[in-house]
Amino acid sequence: MKYSFKNDYSEMAHPRILDAFSAVQAKQFEGYGLDEHSAEATALIRKKVNALSADVHFIAGGTHANLVVISSILRPHEAVIAAESGHIFVHEAGSIEATGHKICTRVGINGKLSAGDIESVILEHSDEHMVKPRLVYLSLSTECGTVYTKAELSAVSKYCRDNNLYLYIDGARLGNAINSPACDLSYSDVSELADAFFIGGTKNGALFGEAIVICNDAMKKDFRFHLKQRGALLSKGAAIAVQFSAFFKDGLYNELASLANQKARKLADGIMASGFEFLFPVETNMIIPILPTEVAERMHKLYGFYDWKVFCDKTAVRLLTSWATREDKIDKFLADLNSV
Amino acid sequence: MKYSFKNDYSEMAHPRILDAFSAVQAKQFEGYGLDEHSAEATALIRKKVNALSADVHFIAGGTHANLVVISSILRPHEAVIAAESGHIFVHEAGSIEATGHKICTRVGINGKLSAGDIESVILEHSDEHMVKPRLVYLSLSTECGTVYTKAELSAVSKYCRDNNLYLYIDGARLGNAINSPACDLSYSDVSELADAFFIGGTKNGALFGEAIVICNDAMKKDFRFHLKQRGALLSKGAAIAVQFSAFFKDGLYNELASLANQKARKLADGIMASGFEFLFPVETNMIIPILPTEVAERMHKLYGFYDWKVFCDKTAVRLLTSWATREDKIDKFLADLNSV
Amino acid sequence: MKYSFKNDYSEMAHPRILDAFSAVQAKQFEGYGLDEHSAEATALIRKKVNALSADVHFIAGGTHANLVVISSILRPHEAVIAAESGHIFVHEAGSIEATGHKICTRVGINGKLSAGDIESVILEHSDEHMVKPRLVYLSLSTECGTVYTKAELSAVSKYCRDNNLYLYIDGARLGNAINSPACDLSYSDVSELADAFFIGGTKNGALFGEAIVICNDAMKKDFRFHLKQRGALLSKGAAIAVQFSAFFKDGLYNELASLANQKARKLADGIMASGFEFLFPVETNMIIPILPTEVAERMHKLYGFYDWKVFCDKTAVRLLTSWATREDKIDKFLADLNSV
Amino acid sequence: MKYSFKNDYSEMAHPRILDAFSAVQAKQFEGYGLDEHSAEATALIRKKVNALSADVHFIAGGTHANLVVISSILRPHEAVIAAESGHIFVHEAGSIEATGHKICTRVGINGKLSAGDIESVILEHSDEHMVKPRLVYLSLSTECGTVYTKAELSAVSKYCRDNNLYLYIDGARLGNAINSPACDLSYSDVSELADAFFIGGTKNGALFGEAIVICNDAMKKDFRFHLKQRGALLSKGAAIAVQFSAFFKDGLYNELASLANQKARKLADGIMASGFEFLFPVETNMIIPILPTEVAERMHKLYGFYDWKVFCDKTAVRLLTSWATREDKIDKFLADLNSV
Repeated sequence: MKYSFKNDYSEMAHPRILDAFSAVQAKQFEGYGLDEHSAEATALIRKKVNALSADVHFIAGGTHANLVVISSILRPHEAVIAAESGHIFVHEAGSIEATGHKICTRVGINGKLSAGDIESVILEHSDEHMVKPRLVYLSLSTECGTVYTKAELSAVSKYCRDNNLYLYIDGARLGNAINSPACDLSYSDVSELADAFFIGGTKNGALFGEAIVICNDAMKKDFRFHLKQRGALLSKGAAIAVQFSAFFKDGLYNELASLANQKARKLADGIMASGFEFLFPVETNMIIPILPTEVAERMHKLYGFYDWKVFCDKTAVRLLTSWATREDKIDKFLADLNSV
Repeated sequence: MKYSFKNDYSEMAHPRILDAFSAVQAKQFEGYGLDEHSAEATALIRKKVNALSADVHFIAGGTHANLVVISSILRPHEAVIAAESGHIFVHEAGSIEATGHKICTRVGINGKLSAGDIESVILEHSDEHMVKPRLVYLSLSTECGTVYTKAELSAVSKYCRDNNLYLYIDGARLGNAINSPACDLSYSDVSELADAFFIGGTKNGALFGEAIVICNDAMKKDFRFHLKQRGALLSKGAAIAVQFSAFFKDGLYNELASLANQKARKLADGIMASGFEFLFPVETNMIIPILPTEVAERMHKLYGFYDWKVFCDKTAVRLLTSWATREDKIDKFLADLNSV
Repeated sequence: MKYSFKNDYSEMAHPRILDAFSAVQAKQFEGYGLDEHSAEATALIRKKVNALSADVHFIAGGTHANLVVISSILRPHEAVIAAESGHIFVHEAGSIEATGHKICTRVGINGKLSAGDIESVILEHSDEHMVKPRLVYLSLSTECGTVYTKAELSAVSKYCRDNNLYLYIDGARLGNAINSPACDLSYSDVSELADAFFIGGTKNGALFGEAIVICNDAMKKDFRFHLKQRGALLSKGAAIAVQFSAFFKDGLYNELASLANQKARKLADGIMASGFEFLFPVETNMIIPILPTEVAERMHKLYGFYDWKVFCDKTAVRLLTSWATREDKIDKFLADLNSV
Repeated sequence: MKYSFKNDYSEMAHPRILDAFSAVQAKQFEGYGLDEHSAEATALIRKKVNALSADVHFIAGGTHANLVVISSILRPHEAVIAAESGHIFVHEAGSIEATGHKICTRVGINGKLSAGDIESVILEHSDEHMVKPRLVYLSLSTECGTVYTKAELSAVSKYCRDNNLYLYIDGARLGNAINSPACDLSYSDVSELADAFFIGGTKNGALFGEAIVICNDAMKKDFRFHLKQRGALLSKGAAIAVQFSAFFKDGLYNELASLANQKARKLADGIMASGFEFLFPVETNMIIPILPTEVAERMHKLYGFYDWKVFCDKTAVRLLTSWATREDKIDKFLADLNSV
């Protein structure tokens, strides 16, 4: 197999995550997330995001988290607002529509939805012949590898609160965003500005699992029913919780996310030094340089990565790094890029 | 925490399962089950169930497996036939109905649905004012801890094939069934008689995960779309696959299931020796003795377990064992039972 | 075609209903129920049911009314409680499940659900592994042709209010119930005791159409969105409204329902006089006598009607009358019954 | 009430439609569309569209027809392709998504979807992370009042058949299209090119009702189950059928559609003569002239009509005519338009 920059989940799990399973081997625990490991991880997350009364639920994957949260709170006629590049709109196989809800989109800039975008959707939905937009979905970091600034997210949040809209954040790569030099948001800011969000584990070194954080009391009621009904309430929920305890008891989560960002930065710097431009600002562990198509094709023979978009004789390619990305492979990639 | 006989997923995972993760730490793998670990586990399972052209998909949990399989194949007006004690009817929070399908039930005997039960459902559904039953769901072993014999399952399967019904088996505890002295079914028999089934990992020592096996070609098409749409296509699907490879490359799966059964047998024998009767035949790792309610209450103070049913001054209680159940705790339980 | 006692919708419409269309031919009206005819019919219905702030919506059919009302108010994990003979459970092709909701049933007596039946459902639903029953559905008159007394309905209503359950009444034959000598309920009682109900037009002489009445403010919000989303917001909603104005401006609704009941009474009296018994009390325009199967078969050759149930050598048959049922056909039916 | 050009369903029904109900008053008929009136109307429609083996089903409204047809044939992961102006995408309150299916859109030209538009959707849906487009929805005439030519519709149909896509046509205004001078399609062409379509009654003088025509055998099976499940199988289906018999036994349907088109033409000619342009070609009974906003506002005080779009100091307004539109009102409208 060629060395892969396809994604940030190409390796099994960080060693300290695997150790976390072994450490609790001897003990029995309660099923379905009612165990002490889940309680411990919940306490650590509440503290980290500075939301002591938030509800925390552990779930196996991100698409699943999105559909459970969104379908749990919307009435049948209510819809979601998202960027056209939003993961739920493009890459979740119609999962939200399968729960009965339409997604209203706006193009957005650099994968981001602005308060103005949201307002324009609201303004065009006037009566009962149309759906009623009720929840704003955004990703942090985005599908373009970019981040919202505190000012941007605050404006979105304010618009939502002023207009009776829920704000839900897909944080599959939340660590990469918070640890981005381009992002002035803290975990506390996220919990203050959003009604609910999830903290991604799978893409930051966990074996599997995400942590849903619900801040808005109105969204908390009966949430475990929804988890169960959608097949998301794992009997060994504790197995996700112990990973999040490992993440948040001593800084591992930020450490791994920073590492991933730094590796992307190094890769991006090298690519820039070779004279190539980027489709979006380089802000996290996902970078999208624009290569001559012939260069992209040559590199495809040597490395695994996805094409993002082809235009004229150029191809924008998507490169992802993780905590596990090997430095020598980055060096080699850059060398190969220049070795025409 | 009191020692628990509540279920067979009270411990994290068997050590050889955890070893399986560490063993593949160094290597990158493809996402979403398109990796070599998934291919290897698939090959092992196909061989084990003697169905070389079966499709195998790995998924995090059993409720999720049930709803994805069932909703993938039914048209909107088609319904499921199940026993009244069926897990999907009682304990999955309306997950099947949430995908749009009604479940038609029959009481069944010892948790089992007979061909006659199924026929009686079919006979009463005559026209388009009613749903159209199309898929039979049964559990092996059942929610009562019992097993189908080969003759029973063959009769059900024959009725289904003669009447254009799919047969789907919830095998959350398939290992316990196959390894039960009361059961003359082999894995091959199951793959021959059913259109699809899943092999449970979570309840037999896995950290998490089940393996869906689809034998009927008509059910195979586009199945990965359904997994994705319901949030079940894990990016690190490989993490489930390596566990199933560990299960099936050298007999671990049967070994753990047998161990669980033996421990239940020992517990049941002791309870019988104390003069108590059972609500259902003792056949697998779930046993349901009938205790005087005052005895049940006394034991509740010492051990964790669920009440199954209360009638007059008796309480039928549900006790489960696993590979990890401690022998000394079984001895102590029996001693405590007799120490009035 | 043999003369039919199959149902109460075998004739097109009462002449005064057809006149109502002609009377408004010259005028333009607003679409989608926002017209003056709808306003007039709404005012008449509000007055009739003594609920001046109730919302009234006109819809083409009863199954549609049931699914729109029920799906509009339930969250995904919430379920319906109904009698096993309930129309939504048996004869609506899984329409409620198709909107995602499970129906929990009790056998009931004479087609009626008691407060005790409802309580027994509530008591067995304890946690998030099960659905959460939230709405009680009952029919007035029932699928067995019977009626609730005021004491019975009050007990059901009280239990619902004490336990945070919505009470919704399928009134496809509400007129037959209210005008039954066995029923001491008034329209006002119904609007006081239920959260929502519908008044059936189709089965009482309308060309088509039912009037949904929503009394509980919590169920009113955004209801027109739900009508639209389910395909129930007719552009010519006015065409239903003018029929309901004709029904309620001068007593036509009660007149036709009484006529139907009287004809059933005459038919039943004749059948009783011939020495036959009935499966359920004779209370409305649906009667279910028990005939020797050979008699039933002979009568089938002469008249249209449905068999309800066959047991031993008897067949319970369902006979329905309407305002349009011909007296001479009743006389002939009774004569034929006796002419063995 | 101001005279209204808002829509083509502002009057109750054509007199010959009302006569059709009276004509069958004396006779009993079978319920749920199994009657002789439905058989007669079916035969007339089959002949008219030259599809003798087509299935015909009568339904109360167009939104309902769309959702029943589309949800009946798609599997959960399959999606619809439509123009951005498509009625199902904009003005049916998320009805298709409520049945679980995503709609993939293209802008289209003059409200029409081209084969190229459809291909571009297909090309961008490559794997199981996305939905699988499977059915093309288009309106004839469109939401812009335009029609497809035979060449255009044939190209769309060919692309669909070559690519395993269903083609479904919303014919709420099919009569206006077929009778448009701009349209060289016959009813036979429509039944040959589409897999299913509906013939609109409500907007062409019926009291209520549409006729669904299913040409593709694969879409026929169990369709009555779907009608029933979605609340669309009316017990008095005969009441719709008699209207369609009136439409098609002697040319009334085409007559009324032509009348509506002619009135729109007259209105459009007058508006053009006053020097105004149109947003889309004038082809049927819906015309969308572009007026100075101040003129539009003045006319709003005198007539009922909708604004379609506001840009700079212009407002495109939507005017609809029907068989019942009064000539004197058209003359007055044109006079008022010029009387600045």
